[in-house]
Amino acid sequence: MTHKVLLLPGDGIGPEIAAQAARLLKACQEAGLDIEVEEGLVGGSAYDVHGEPLPAETLEKAKAASAILLGAVGGPKWDKLEDLSKRPEKGLLGLRKNLGLFGNLRPAMLYPQLASASSLKSELVAGLDIMIVRELTGGIYFGQPRGIEERNGERVGFNTYIYSESEIERIGRVAFEMAQKRGKKLCSVDKANVLEVTILWREVMERLAPEYPDVELSHMYVDNAAMQLVRAPKQFDVVVTGNMFGDILSDAAAMLTGSIGMLPSASLNESGQGMYEPCHGSAPDIAGQNVANPLAMMLSVAMMLRYSLNETAMAERIEAAVGSVLDNGLRTADIASEGTRRVSTVEMGDAVLAAF
Amino acid sequence: MTHKVLLLPGDGIGPEIAAQAARLLKACQEAGLDIEVEEGLVGGSAYDVHGEPLPAETLEKAKAASAILLGAVGGPKWDKLEDLSKRPEKGLLGLRKNLGLFGNLRPAMLYPQLASASSLKSELVAGLDIMIVRELTGGIYFGQPRGIEERNGERVGFNTYIYSESEIERIGRVAFEMAQKRGKKLCSVDKANVLEVTILWREVMERLAPEYPDVELSHMYVDNAAMQLVRAPKQFDVVVTGNMFGDILSDAAAMLTGSIGMLPSASLNESGQGMYEPCHGSAPDIAGQNVANPLAMMLSVAMMLRYSLNETAMAERIEAAVGSVLDNGLRTADIASEGTRRVSTVEMGDAVLAAF
Ligand SMILES: CC(C)[C@H](C(=O)O)[C@@H](O)C(=O)O
Ligand SMILES: CC(C)[C@H](C(=O)O)[C@@H](O)C(=O)O
Repeated sequence: MTHKVLLLPGDGIGPEIAAQAARLLKACQEAGLDIEVEEGLVGGSAYDVHGEPLPAETLEKAKAASAILLGAVGGPKWDKLEDLSKRPEKGLLGLRKNLGLFGNLRPAMLYPQLASASSLKSELVAGLDIMIVRELTGGIYFGQPRGIEERNGERVGFNTYIYSESEIERIGRVAFEMAQKRGKKLCSVDKANVLEVTILWREVMERLAPEYPDVELSHMYVDNAAMQLVRAPKQFDVVVTGNMFGDILSDAAAMLTGSIGMLPSASLNESGQGMYEPCHGSAPDIAGQNVANPLAMMLSVAMMLRYSLNETAMAERIEAAVGSVLDNGLRTADIASEGTRRVSTVEMGDAVLAAF
Repeated sequence: MTHKVLLLPGDGIGPEIAAQAARLLKACQEAGLDIEVEEGLVGGSAYDVHGEPLPAETLEKAKAASAILLGAVGGPKWDKLEDLSKRPEKGLLGLRKNLGLFGNLRPAMLYPQLASASSLKSELVAGLDIMIVRELTGGIYFGQPRGIEERNGERVGFNTYIYSESEIERIGRVAFEMAQKRGKKLCSVDKANVLEVTILWREVMERLAPEYPDVELSHMYVDNAAMQLVRAPKQFDVVVTGNMFGDILSDAAAMLTGSIGMLPSASLNESGQGMYEPCHGSAPDIAGQNVANPLAMMLSVAMMLRYSLNETAMAERIEAAVGSVLDNGLRTADIASEGTRRVSTVEMGDAVLAAF
């Protein structure tokens, strides 16, 4: 059966890195992968054409696809849009919500070839390999009521941080299963000393634990987790947390590697359909200059092959190609260091394809 | 006029470090400072005696004091308390709320003597000096409605992240004024691409900016702020943010220095009354062992003298004493490194007093 893959380049550096992913998809097809690739608009570039960050057409294509590859969305051009529902970010949030992509997997791993890129002392990050499992379709991102309104003669802004037991259980199971496949340690992050919603979170995680006796479950307050990531990140294996805390901690964890331009992510729904995207953003400051690092996007293709298309061998080929390009000393600007060869976005794409 | 100072040792290592602060206060009195020191119970130790983490008596004393010195609260002993309102943390939150201590100042600065303690490469943190201004009596910590209840056949947990314009303006002014006294750069942290409450936050900060033309205001999303703190912390001067983001970012920033045991904090209300406490927690794992670092607590005394009692000279004497003790190579376990002399809590207190 032919898998449909939807490529959504998005904004900023999105189109440049998506172009390299498109070349890689073509190479996979030539190597025998049975996929059909379509493209679509999302984010600011969709707003510019359709007046909507998530046009109905894009959503339809996304629903019909086995997997989606997304570049990045957002940029200063659209930051001033008064109507929050028109902002590029809503395109991304709309895809997550409409497709039910509740399980966000954000690996933070250090490529040995890039060890010196980390801002942390090398002994603290050598071999770093954390998997952050972030709940992606609930919590304060989507909670109602929300808004800005007049109360007692002045405006107030408000949002609702809310989770139901079933939402927590669902993401908890993803995390426990992930821990079973990895180092068998799961750290659940909450703020149960202050927030009721996370008291329920902790309770549900505790209730699930006996079903996964081989996994060691621990709990950490979010402020402490932010500290421990900076202090001794290698203490973590799998981390599970809600949408907002996951947003913050996964970015901090990714940055620990010093090479966020290398990190892919997956967002999965109950049926294994997934959206794959780099952890980095749309980097409008360097857009259009052919300097962005396409590797996170190309590794997102590998992650897609593994998690949604069940094509492990092909995924490994891509990862090996990236590894050999790094071994050969090729680096885009973001990961450049002394003694390596600086290459452009397209040259990096060329090199991965040559090694594939 | 005699200033009343209320000392609240709290839980865990709180009593041990508070004892060193008490000695320092006595030395200040002998050096001519006109203060009267009282003690009180708060947190788990208050719960054990009175069944309440913030007994009425303590609150009365706190209201009558010019300044409060607090050790730390919390510990595993009380973590299982079903009733969240009885937890040690509620003692701390109750003091903040009842005294209106909305302005939380959390400096993250690196002592040159402790440069190697940071987990970051030294060139990235040398000279680090960030001031995080955190709103402390609003936001999701206190927002209503909140709770856990049954909806559609299952339980949901929920909290409300809410700020009014006047609350935002009040903390904004503290931050702008702080920036004026420092490097004249203010970074406001929000998640305005997703949360309405922080759209209002950003708007109010923008509205205040023209009143402080010498301060350069910038905005950053919280996920990016967490990354930038890890990547290049010296880009920050003053950071202003809400209660929850401030909790997370101030701990991460403090940990960047590698010596959270050195960092004091202040929480101020409209009339300059303040509560002073170390940034670190109650560290139950090392409580009662005479190994905790008392310096953050002793430096909290200095911060109190500066901000609430207007005794700058005496504050500087304390800071100089701490500096000379570090120069002499004395270190508690948390900041120990090769070639330094390891001392206990009490020995560190002795040394500061001798140098005072
Ligand atoms: C762009 C933004 C809405 C998004 C988020 O906050 O989830 C991004 O930061 C991410 O982490 O994917
Ligand atoms: C103990 C806890 C309630 C408190 C907070 O979250 O504010 C602490 O983490 C702090 O930062 O002072």
